[in-house]
Amino acid sequence: MNKTVHWGILGCARIAATALIPGIKGSANGEVLSVASRNVEKAKEYARKFDIPRAYGSYEELLDDAEIQAVCVPLPNGLHKEWTIKAAEKGKHVLCEKPIACCAADAQAMNDSCRQHGVLLMEAFAQRFHPQYQRAQEMIQEGRIGKILRITASMSRSVYPADDIRMNPSLGGGALMDLGCYCINTARHLVGSEPVSVFATQEIGQSGVDERTTGTLYFPGGELLQFDTNLYLDEKHFVQGCTVYGEK
Amino acid sequence: MNKTVHWGILGCARIAATALIPGIKGSANGEVLSVASRNVEKAKEYARKFDIPRAYGSYEELLDDAEIQAVCVPLPNGLHKEWTIKAAEKGKHVLCEKPIACCAADAQAMNDSCRQHGVLLMEAFAQRFHPQYQRAQEMIQEGRIGKILRITASMSRSVYPADDIRMNPSLGGGALMDLGCYCINTARHLVGSEPVSVFATQEIGQSGVDERTTGTLYFPGGELLQFDTNLYLDEKHFVQGCTVYGEK
Repeated sequence: MNKTVHWGILGCARIAATALIPGIKGSANGEVLSVASRNVEKAKEYARKFDIPRAYGSYEELLDDAEIQAVCVPLPNGLHKEWTIKAAEKGKHVLCEKPIACCAADAQAMNDSCRQHGVLLMEAFAQRFHPQYQRAQEMIQEGRIGKILRITASMSRSVYPADDIRMNPSLGGGALMDLGCYCINTARHLVGSEPVSVFATQEIGQSGVDERTTGTLYFPGGELLQFDTNLYLDEKHFVQGCTVYGEK
Repeated sequence: MNKTVHWGILGCARIAATALIPGIKGSANGEVLSVASRNVEKAKEYARKFDIPRAYGSYEELLDDAEIQAVCVPLPNGLHKEWTIKAAEKGKHVLCEKPIACCAADAQAMNDSCRQHGVLLMEAFAQRFHPQYQRAQEMIQEGRIGKILRITASMSRSVYPADDIRMNPSLGGGALMDLGCYCINTARHLVGSEPVSVFATQEIGQSGVDERTTGTLYFPGGELLQFDTNLYLDEKHFVQGCTVYGEK
């Protein structure tokens, strides 16, 4: 039995080039077999550059490749639902970029479709598997800080160029969707439950996306997350941080 | 001209014994001349212990001591207004424990009275003069972190005994008044302006005081403070911290 997983990548995203492809190449059982772009020349160039055997001129063609077992969806947030469901319908497992969808109803529809077609669906919040976060989680579970009382977290950077997909509200852009979602995902992961109430404020820029979201999430055990995500940093800077405070 | 300032202390508070009296004794121009308690024996014992020449059995007697120029009011928060105004009416300068009053109207009345009687009024937020905070402020003013975007702060400890004055709502007790006020005062100091809006939640214990207050203050320049103050820590622990994030 051949245990190699053949991956296909929808689109020529930079995140795939810098993180996903090296990850699959470095894995014990993964191989990137195909890449697809709406522009076939772009797909071919990307395939040459990263030593990927097959290049397609449309996402549909890749999904019709019978040898592909799993696809990565590093497309803009606003396209996650459409392409995840199309992939599921073709029987492909899906690793979808974070955040998985633009609203809960979309995420539910994606989840339902993948269950129906018997394929796995995973949201690419890689930090859940980062040794640093795993060690933090272990220390919390060992009772080293007692019950969690408060988490502060931030992820911020400078503003994206006006034509960046992350400045496009119709594609699910903005600071919260691109960066702040990490703060929320990490807190949900470390606390181990879902928030019961939220207070947040947003500053919406001329582009129509939030350039800042600041909020507090209240968890059922009394834990809280205070986070800030913004695109207001000086160009040279990027901030990512999370601090967990316990009762001891 | 004798430049020594003769101080009087209203009450036998522990904060006076541990911080204020050593501070005055260590100063170039201060002398603790009198202490007053509603229990004259208590005042006499306190005076003996700290080498204070005069002990009175009522606060009024101390305010009638013509040689006293300045008084410390380390009484419970709910008594600050009454005794600050009485001291001002006797022509005494006032150093009042933090927070200066239980509401803005009381603080205004205290301020008005001190102005009217030509005496100084100061709120004892000592950390404004702490070298560490002064250095932080200098670094901010030098532009080292650019414009302030966010401050996170906390001051928390374990719950006080049920009969502690800080567990008494009618005396201005609770976590916010006792501890959280430091977070707010520090942020106002470092940002250099007053908040324009606030969102906060409180958890009120059986005693009737807040055992936790969690909030966000929005400043006019876009700076924000996210703070948490609670009485939920393990007995052995005390947390005090403030982190300032800038655009660079």
